[in-house]
Amino acid sequence: MTKRALGVCYYPEHWPEDWWAEDARRMREVGIAVVRIGEFAWSRLEPARGRYDFDWLQRAIDTLHGAGLKVVVGTPTATPPKWLVDAMPDMLQVDEKGRPRRFGSRRHYCFSHEGYRAECARIVEALAKRFGEHEGVVAWQTDNEYGCHGTTISYSQAALKGFRDWLGRKYQSPDALNRAWGNVFWSMEYGSFEEIELPNLLPTDPAPAHAMDFRRYSSDAVVSFNRLHADIIRRHSPGRDVIHNFMGRTLAFDHFDVGADLDVSSWDSYPLGFLDQWADRKADFKARFARSGDPDLQAFHHDLYRATSGGRWWIMEQQPGPVNWAPHNPAPRAGMVRLWAHEAFAHGAEVVSYFRWRQAPFAQEQMHAGLTRPDREPAPGYHEAAAVAREIETLDLAEPGRGDAAIVFDYPSAWAWDIQRQGREFDYFRLVHDFYRGLRRLGLSVDFVDARQAVAAADYKLLLVPGLFTWPPGLKEALAEAKGQVLVGPRSGSKTPDFAIPAKLPPELPEPLAALKVALVETLRPDLAVPMADGTGAFHLWREMLDGVADGDILLRTVDGEAALVGRGGLHYLAGWPDEALAFAVLGKLAERAGLATLDLPEGLRLRRSGKLTHCFNYGDAPVRLSQHGIEGAFVLGADELPPSGVAILEAG
Amino acid sequence: MTKRALGVCYYPEHWPEDWWAEDARRMREVGIAVVRIGEFAWSRLEPARGRYDFDWLQRAIDTLHGAGLKVVVGTPTATPPKWLVDAMPDMLQVDEKGRPRRFGSRRHYCFSHEGYRAECARIVEALAKRFGEHEGVVAWQTDNEYGCHGTTISYSQAALKGFRDWLGRKYQSPDALNRAWGNVFWSMEYGSFEEIELPNLLPTDPAPAHAMDFRRYSSDAVVSFNRLHADIIRRHSPGRDVIHNFMGRTLAFDHFDVGADLDVSSWDSYPLGFLDQWADRKADFKARFARSGDPDLQAFHHDLYRATSGGRWWIMEQQPGPVNWAPHNPAPRAGMVRLWAHEAFAHGAEVVSYFRWRQAPFAQEQMHAGLTRPDREPAPGYHEAAAVAREIETLDLAEPGRGDAAIVFDYPSAWAWDIQRQGREFDYFRLVHDFYRGLRRLGLSVDFVDARQAVAAADYKLLLVPGLFTWPPGLKEALAEAKGQVLVGPRSGSKTPDFAIPAKLPPELPEPLAALKVALVETLRPDLAVPMADGTGAFHLWREMLDGVADGDILLRTVDGEAALVGRGGLHYLAGWPDEALAFAVLGKLAERAGLATLDLPEGLRLRRSGKLTHCFNYGDAPVRLSQHGIEGAFVLGADELPPSGVAILEAG
Amino acid sequence: MTKRALGVCYYPEHWPEDWWAEDARRMREVGIAVVRIGEFAWSRLEPARGRYDFDWLQRAIDTLHGAGLKVVVGTPTATPPKWLVDAMPDMLQVDEKGRPRRFGSRRHYCFSHEGYRAECARIVEALAKRFGEHEGVVAWQTDNEYGCHGTTISYSQAALKGFRDWLGRKYQSPDALNRAWGNVFWSMEYGSFEEIELPNLLPTDPAPAHAMDFRRYSSDAVVSFNRLHADIIRRHSPGRDVIHNFMGRTLAFDHFDVGADLDVSSWDSYPLGFLDQWADRKADFKARFARSGDPDLQAFHHDLYRATSGGRWWIMEQQPGPVNWAPHNPAPRAGMVRLWAHEAFAHGAEVVSYFRWRQAPFAQEQMHAGLTRPDREPAPGYHEAAAVAREIETLDLAEPGRGDAAIVFDYPSAWAWDIQRQGREFDYFRLVHDFYRGLRRLGLSVDFVDARQAVAAADYKLLLVPGLFTWPPGLKEALAEAKGQVLVGPRSGSKTPDFAIPAKLPPELPEPLAALKVALVETLRPDLAVPMADGTGAFHLWREMLDGVADGDILLRTVDGEAALVGRGGLHYLAGWPDEALAFAVLGKLAERAGLATLDLPEGLRLRRSGKLTHCFNYGDAPVRLSQHGIEGAFVLGADELPPSGVAILEAG
Repeated sequence: MTKRALGVCYYPEHWPEDWWAEDARRMREVGIAVVRIGEFAWSRLEPARGRYDFDWLQRAIDTLHGAGLKVVVGTPTATPPKWLVDAMPDMLQVDEKGRPRRFGSRRHYCFSHEGYRAECARIVEALAKRFGEHEGVVAWQTDNEYGCHGTTISYSQAALKGFRDWLGRKYQSPDALNRAWGNVFWSMEYGSFEEIELPNLLPTDPAPAHAMDFRRYSSDAVVSFNRLHADIIRRHSPGRDVIHNFMGRTLAFDHFDVGADLDVSSWDSYPLGFLDQWADRKADFKARFARSGDPDLQAFHHDLYRATSGGRWWIMEQQPGPVNWAPHNPAPRAGMVRLWAHEAFAHGAEVVSYFRWRQAPFAQEQMHAGLTRPDREPAPGYHEAAAVAREIETLDLAEPGRGDAAIVFDYPSAWAWDIQRQGREFDYFRLVHDFYRGLRRLGLSVDFVDARQAVAAADYKLLLVPGLFTWPPGLKEALAEAKGQVLVGPRSGSKTPDFAIPAKLPPELPEPLAALKVALVETLRPDLAVPMADGTGAFHLWREMLDGVADGDILLRTVDGEAALVGRGGLHYLAGWPDEALAFAVLGKLAERAGLATLDLPEGLRLRRSGKLTHCFNYGDAPVRLSQHGIEGAFVLGADELPPSGVAILEAG
Repeated sequence: MTKRALGVCYYPEHWPEDWWAEDARRMREVGIAVVRIGEFAWSRLEPARGRYDFDWLQRAIDTLHGAGLKVVVGTPTATPPKWLVDAMPDMLQVDEKGRPRRFGSRRHYCFSHEGYRAECARIVEALAKRFGEHEGVVAWQTDNEYGCHGTTISYSQAALKGFRDWLGRKYQSPDALNRAWGNVFWSMEYGSFEEIELPNLLPTDPAPAHAMDFRRYSSDAVVSFNRLHADIIRRHSPGRDVIHNFMGRTLAFDHFDVGADLDVSSWDSYPLGFLDQWADRKADFKARFARSGDPDLQAFHHDLYRATSGGRWWIMEQQPGPVNWAPHNPAPRAGMVRLWAHEAFAHGAEVVSYFRWRQAPFAQEQMHAGLTRPDREPAPGYHEAAAVAREIETLDLAEPGRGDAAIVFDYPSAWAWDIQRQGREFDYFRLVHDFYRGLRRLGLSVDFVDARQAVAAADYKLLLVPGLFTWPPGLKEALAEAKGQVLVGPRSGSKTPDFAIPAKLPPELPEPLAALKVALVETLRPDLAVPMADGTGAFHLWREMLDGVADGDILLRTVDGEAALVGRGGLHYLAGWPDEALAFAVLGKLAERAGLATLDLPEGLRLRRSGKLTHCFNYGDAPVRLSQHGIEGAFVLGADELPPSGVAILEAG
Repeated sequence: MTKRALGVCYYPEHWPEDWWAEDARRMREVGIAVVRIGEFAWSRLEPARGRYDFDWLQRAIDTLHGAGLKVVVGTPTATPPKWLVDAMPDMLQVDEKGRPRRFGSRRHYCFSHEGYRAECARIVEALAKRFGEHEGVVAWQTDNEYGCHGTTISYSQAALKGFRDWLGRKYQSPDALNRAWGNVFWSMEYGSFEEIELPNLLPTDPAPAHAMDFRRYSSDAVVSFNRLHADIIRRHSPGRDVIHNFMGRTLAFDHFDVGADLDVSSWDSYPLGFLDQWADRKADFKARFARSGDPDLQAFHHDLYRATSGGRWWIMEQQPGPVNWAPHNPAPRAGMVRLWAHEAFAHGAEVVSYFRWRQAPFAQEQMHAGLTRPDREPAPGYHEAAAVAREIETLDLAEPGRGDAAIVFDYPSAWAWDIQRQGREFDYFRLVHDFYRGLRRLGLSVDFVDARQAVAAADYKLLLVPGLFTWPPGLKEALAEAKGQVLVGPRSGSKTPDFAIPAKLPPELPEPLAALKVALVETLRPDLAVPMADGTGAFHLWREMLDGVADGDILLRTVDGEAALVGRGGLHYLAGWPDEALAFAVLGKLAERAGLATLDLPEGLRLRRSGKLTHCFNYGDAPVRLSQHGIEGAFVLGADELPPSGVAILEAG
């Protein structure tokens, strides 16, 4: 039996001290076990340089611990205080237009600034020394939401210096760099590393390899910044988990690399805000799910982030009601605050922590709901959280186990797609999510695999490799030995590590498809799809014309007679971006070949199997009858008729 | 009998001096009585520092006066000349991205710059001394169109210094400021006023109280800049009116505050330009009224600005034909130039002054029509203005008197809505205008009331308080004593003066609705309305869920069963943003309770009652028969069949 | 018999030297005769200041020449290398927001920088001396694509200095400038030329004459920059053609002025990229022609650029497959790569040169197709180019000869329309292209005429003068003497050279329409057209109301009774922007009066007559039968049934 817990985010510094004990008592009453505190409190922990004031935090931790709560302490480095910024103004991030960002909100620092890193090390060490062995402290959160507000990349002098050093280490000589970037192209050759500039404010595009190296450098800066935290914490706080809270659809740094330095990955899940904010969902879809969220988006991140730190993961911030930051901020439909937590647990979350205990009546997030209202009364989410707490107390939840299918995921591919969009709508996240949605609609459970670790995924029954820009060492060879069905493409293997087209053309598949070449690619207006000859759907946005394909290997053709899906043995290549119907059809065909049992779930119904349990979630606004969709078993929770926002758990017979 | 007059804007410096007398003669011929001159002529009045050249202006005033015209002299401070800018380049305004604005058009100065203020005082005093007692001079215009081109707010060093001083005076200590702004939230605490920065170029939002104080400061800078003018003029030009010409839908400074230093408020009315320019009107509506203007927009401003200076008001610039600055600039439909003037007089304008006498063939506004063309021939507006002049000569127009209903208006609420939009489409002006349109469709006459003066409005038969962010002293209490019907909300009373949510939750109504609380709010996509259970319309964009409401007080529910309109006695609360149908229904219901006689006017027909007169205006493109819409009386002007662009005036029997 | 040739763009510096000979051999095999090289190779030709390395270029030219190919050498000035930029960082262009553009792509220089001009002169002279008399060298290309990436206008200190000097020469005194610009308008008067600033970063619009002079200055800077090249080349490379490669729809500099210093104009034709990129074509049209291009756009540029250098012209870069830079980059429909070349030859191109020989696997344009793929195999365009080569070998193509109709074209008018849009959709190019499309649909052949040379065009059977802002000397008088039908307007003659409205109002036509005046103009929302009374179409976007027209001269009226088309004798005036139907109707009427035989071609079918030959092109996606559209003759190429992408050439009986 796996024990799961609810948590909450709490800011003792926002409230009168005489409220703390009552707050703690009511948290326990709701069924909350874990509390995160402290991550924005630098100005209270160190009101002036070197003048530490940790006593209030000590009292807060003691109070929470005394009430039986476990505490996660956040390092306050996402909010450097004014005295620090004024002492080193060049620590400020610089935006793409060359303007330094100002103090007055958060995340205003540049990851590359050595002086700021030293200050972070100092405050983190002081905190870790003071609270590292407190028995109420079970974990640490490093900083907060790296990359939020578009803050991963800084065009500062500190970043320029760091980038030049990074390039020097990577290439050793300017000539090697010039060759790798193709600088001969437009007389862009450099005579020394000191000549290199950042790739912003140019008349037209920089060399893609230039841009790509700056993206790699910027990601590495986040990784080493995080590691600086982790190393100090581990030195002074043995046995506690080091955690960071990722955001949704944040691709600007490599979460696998950051995750490698964490004990637990966590993420901040705001289903309604995310759906409303992102431009690549259609308006009618956004309206339909405005109060429940995209039925596949939370699960996508659960599965992705679970992969970034060896399987252990949390929700650090869970939307408890309307938020304040999306273009529109509706209230969740009744039941969704409960549903989202259950879905996270189904995917293996250890902790689901709501953000935040009480809505703050002041400052930037005053319109962001909490479990309680500013008048200290319960908000709607309060009661739903309490229901979840009661339910998980009695449920015997299983570990998610191995998925039916795996998707190879690769952050550098996201950067590459961004750098070389080729089509206005191009976006790696969207492509991968389209495949993920197809698998979910089939009722399959999905794992994500870091491309660099994907060799170990060759024994999945179904393995997808969509849009992987560059083959990591060994992966192609591993696919040749794969035991199950493998689907590669579109656009996979299209570049060398130096962001060039491979000499013999993509995708460089292993046998038996080694002869296949992408002879020509094209991007398409959204109103110009290429349907399949058999009517199963269409390519949209992107398609490829293939050479070197034997007629007998063509499993699907476009209406204009080109090979669309090619396969021999278990290895397949898809030569375009499938629309929803085609993704469903192709993935269904491969799942069948892989011997996987599949369903055809309606848009709002989703499920997740873990061990013997099948968890069902109704994102739609009408009831569904599970048995009509082939879902059967003994009900551990819920019933066959699943109302809107309903959750059911069935146990296999 | 109230005497009304036509005016015109004239630029003697643009024309050969030997045209002046003939121009003056023809102005009289048209029936014009008042001429505004001089407001952009600094480089001609002072070609180099200290070298004044006022003689030409003397001759111009003498010429106009000699022809029987009354003269309004504008101070030229909206266009500081190049020698002045070069002498103090830091007087330039700085935009939100930190870039100084350049010389070469107008309004390039920063309101906060002390050096520039001194220069303004100097030129204004010199002009006032010279012309202040000229018997042809009846009034002065201060500067020109404060805030036009987005020029109220400057992110300059001068503004930063002024803002810090302003904050110091307001808060006295940094700790008080930190508490008021909620700076603990993200370690935004300041140790001294000298540490505070302007709220631009941040990674994400500033604290709303920070932004709000900067909006207040920026408005105050306009007010004191204007008062500097007014004080000097009053010293040297006794008995003359001090006027400023406001723009349409300019909310960045508090017009009540500026108005307090004026004898007469005036505004510049460009019906076609405004309608085409603003994004929040639907395309089909914009097309339908492209040649006549929004039927409620002019009246809205007439009524609003009438309230800013104790009832006396003018149109300083009236659109005479196509303009040059909107995305599209159609010609007014025949008759509209006449109609607009009549409508202004119906709302109590003392003067309607056309902009401009003659279309300038050169410079920025050469595509802006005048009453005469560049070839000195009459433009279409010439003849319509002449018709108006003849008509007002014979009409016995009444003062507008007290309206049937009043709307509480509050500029700081507009800033607050802007700072904390919460929904992409949010806009205080739009909300208030939606209520105004509802009243107009009912045929009611409307007054606006400054929120700070609204206690005195408690005896209106119908009083609306929409979207008022913060209760001013005494208003809540006054509503409890109100004699008529009061409608509060949506979103009224939602913040404290420090831009925080009230401790006991909004809206803090007096008895008998003191228990009502806004428990939850949400913003809605434009395609996601919440209909009323009785089909009378819907909430869109914004809705609130209420607590503490007795079932018997619920006058209207949403389809999902929530209280939408609550009322007990005369006090009502509306828990969302009404669409046009709902606004009409709710206001109709309240008007009925208030004992007001109402109509149901078609979209293009509008009326204004003043004394015994009913003025009718047909903005639509088809004739309407007034009697079919319940409008009857003895025709002083026009007839029962009102053609497109038609004007009728009826006298009650 | 005119001999035409194919060419290709080749970058020996991108490939191993041992590939060069084989590449040259295969070029000959395809049928290519001309090769352009060298235009981006500065960093290889001069790796450090003064260290020239021309030997590799010598070997490349020798290799190509040895294979029988003719060589065009490009000057490398579009890509100044890093060492040069670092030596004079103020040579960088500055964008409209005041930010210097950075090194790292191309076209980062400012045309006004004297130091950079000296460096250009040095490298051009060194190259011209070395290769000027090489017998393989037949031509030179100056720089590359002036104006691409919005690089004509720079807001640098170098430009400011140059602009002030240019103004000083033009106006001689600040007073003259003040009068010309109308600076009295808003106290914008200058006391010296040193006070003048660039017209960017202003609160609102600059004086249009200020903006216009800066546009003129910026164009002149391109012209003198190009002349610097041409003069040096002619000194050292006698008998070779000096060529520049223009881009499509680039209006920021005067191509007639640059063309005056060229022997041959050329342009870079990317039909699919252009169509997808431009916002003013409707989505369904863009989708319909996404794989073939706008049927009139290529021909438009062929005819326009043919006029810029006395009739000799090339395609320097022809799209060979998908490109990389448009929002979407589809593959050309099979046959289009052939069709585009044939259409260019029909319009008189001497050379059609594909860009590029081989797709580069690295750097910015790696997704841009070539005739061969990165793996050295033929791409689809290879075979189509070979087909063209075989066909032109056997065809006896005629010179285009004189067109049926001429359109007066004027780059300064494009700047003026841009400066004074008056309607959001306004665009001179679009207006002229609408007239061009009307003529093409009638099956007419079109010449363009520089406005300054248009006196010589008075003997065309049909002459169009649309949107010409200012009459050049003599043109009005010439129109009075015109032999054929002349159509003037809309908006022609609307400004003086100082960008003012003429004192007696536009359009200042000669007799017999000298009394006609534009009394009033208006711009219209796209959803607000003004139909003609006879139903033949409508004005959209812009219309004029006329005075001084005799009733008998009105050939067409709007539904509201205004004169729309006026004519007496051969002189006509059109008082609005015609939609497609109206343009076709009006032009058809005038063509009939002119005695020209016309057709009514369907949207995708276009033709060009040259001598006795009629060239037909099917841009549509369905076959057309030529005889059904009145096209007959003896087939020299193709047949009566013209398939999609088909080309046919018929000889008159």
